[in-house]
Amino acid sequence: MRTRRRLLDAAASTFLEHGYEGASIGEITHRAGLTRGAVYFHFASKEELAQGVLDEAVTTEGVRPQILKLQEVVDAAMALAYRLPREPVLAAALRLAVDNGVRRSVRTAWPEWIELLTGILEDAKCRGETLPHVDAGRTARLVMSSWTGVALVLDGVPDGNDLEHHIGTLLDHLLPSIAVPAVLARLDTEAGRGARVAAAAQEAP
Amino acid sequence: MRTRRRLLDAAASTFLEHGYEGASIGEITHRAGLTRGAVYFHFASKEELAQGVLDEAVTTEGVRPQILKLQEVVDAAMALAYRLPREPVLAAALRLAVDNGVRRSVRTAWPEWIELLTGILEDAKCRGETLPHVDAGRTARLVMSSWTGVALVLDGVPDGNDLEHHIGTLLDHLLPSIAVPAVLARLDTEAGRGARVAAAAQEAP
Repeated sequence: MRTRRRLLDAAASTFLEHGYEGASIGEITHRAGLTRGAVYFHFASKEELAQGVLDEAVTTEGVRPQILKLQEVVDAAMALAYRLPREPVLAAALRLAVDNGVRRSVRTAWPEWIELLTGILEDAKCRGETLPHVDAGRTARLVMSSWTGVALVLDGVPDGNDLEHHIGTLLDHLLPSIAVPAVLARLDTEAGRGARVAAAAQEAP
Repeated sequence: MRTRRRLLDAAASTFLEHGYEGASIGEITHRAGLTRGAVYFHFASKEELAQGVLDEAVTTEGVRPQILKLQEVVDAAMALAYRLPREPVLAAALRLAVDNGVRRSVRTAWPEWIELLTGILEDAKCRGETLPHVDAGRTARLVMSSWTGVALVLDGVPDGNDLEHHIGTLLDHLLPSIAVPAVLARLDTEAGRGARVAAAAQEAP
């Protein structure tokens, strides 16, 4: 498992630096400090390495149960915003997911993210946390796709750092049309939430 | 000018099909039905072709003056959502803008979009259309980046067609935290708005 992880880290850094097309198994092998044989034992091709990186990007472990289900949506968004700039595998997965060449041969993590968020939003709806018009599936897709856009654009605009802060702003704009007022007032979208959620997830058994 | 346009269309289709790395000047030349000489008269390199495609993607012509300035923000978003699936140059510009390799050598259209939307939102603020907490620059960036995310994810999720409809949903979620209630009630975010705005822009002198 440790070799597999080292390979995924090396693949992620290589994809980030050279793009999918420009990345070679040779460079990934070299970065991981492994032999070709060890690489092919885990991944038969560059496609499989890309798929491995993408599969790492749906990480439910950041979402711990909260009294308000909508806080779990916020926590998933904030924890990922905290982790993305710190974890090459996540940053590479985002890049791969928007690469047309990659999308022809591998699955993105988007449908799984939409499914995960839809489930939490359905629970939130049952508990009366959401406004009457909210459709769990549509809102899940909207949260996930606007999150993706903020992360991608931020990375390409000169003064665009501090993803967690910008995702907080996104949530502050989206939540008033999702949560009932009594719930809205209790949701924590402050920058810093992501770091705490990520740390708590690390400690979890 | 017509040759230049033909070249940009051919470059856009080629970038969409093969990605930036995989696209060759030879194929672009062939698709445009031109000679190498004609191509190099307009664009000295593949980078310049990519820049040409990206420069086409800030199209203010869709934004005609409206009684409510916030309707102009909506119109820009809806018209672009209508046009993107119909105009390869716009679709290619979006792809190029999220390609790390491209971003090292060319400018994306994002800062100009943020500037354009910031200007409209500042006017809206002066006229009392926006809620007190709205910061024109931050909201402009948020609208632009979440728009981008919706367009990119939609393109990669199995049942994800009908961009205009999804951008309408995005705006319906964002606007309650931007517009004062009296303005909010009068904004038109229905699918179909984009087509009408785009058609009106075509007729404009």
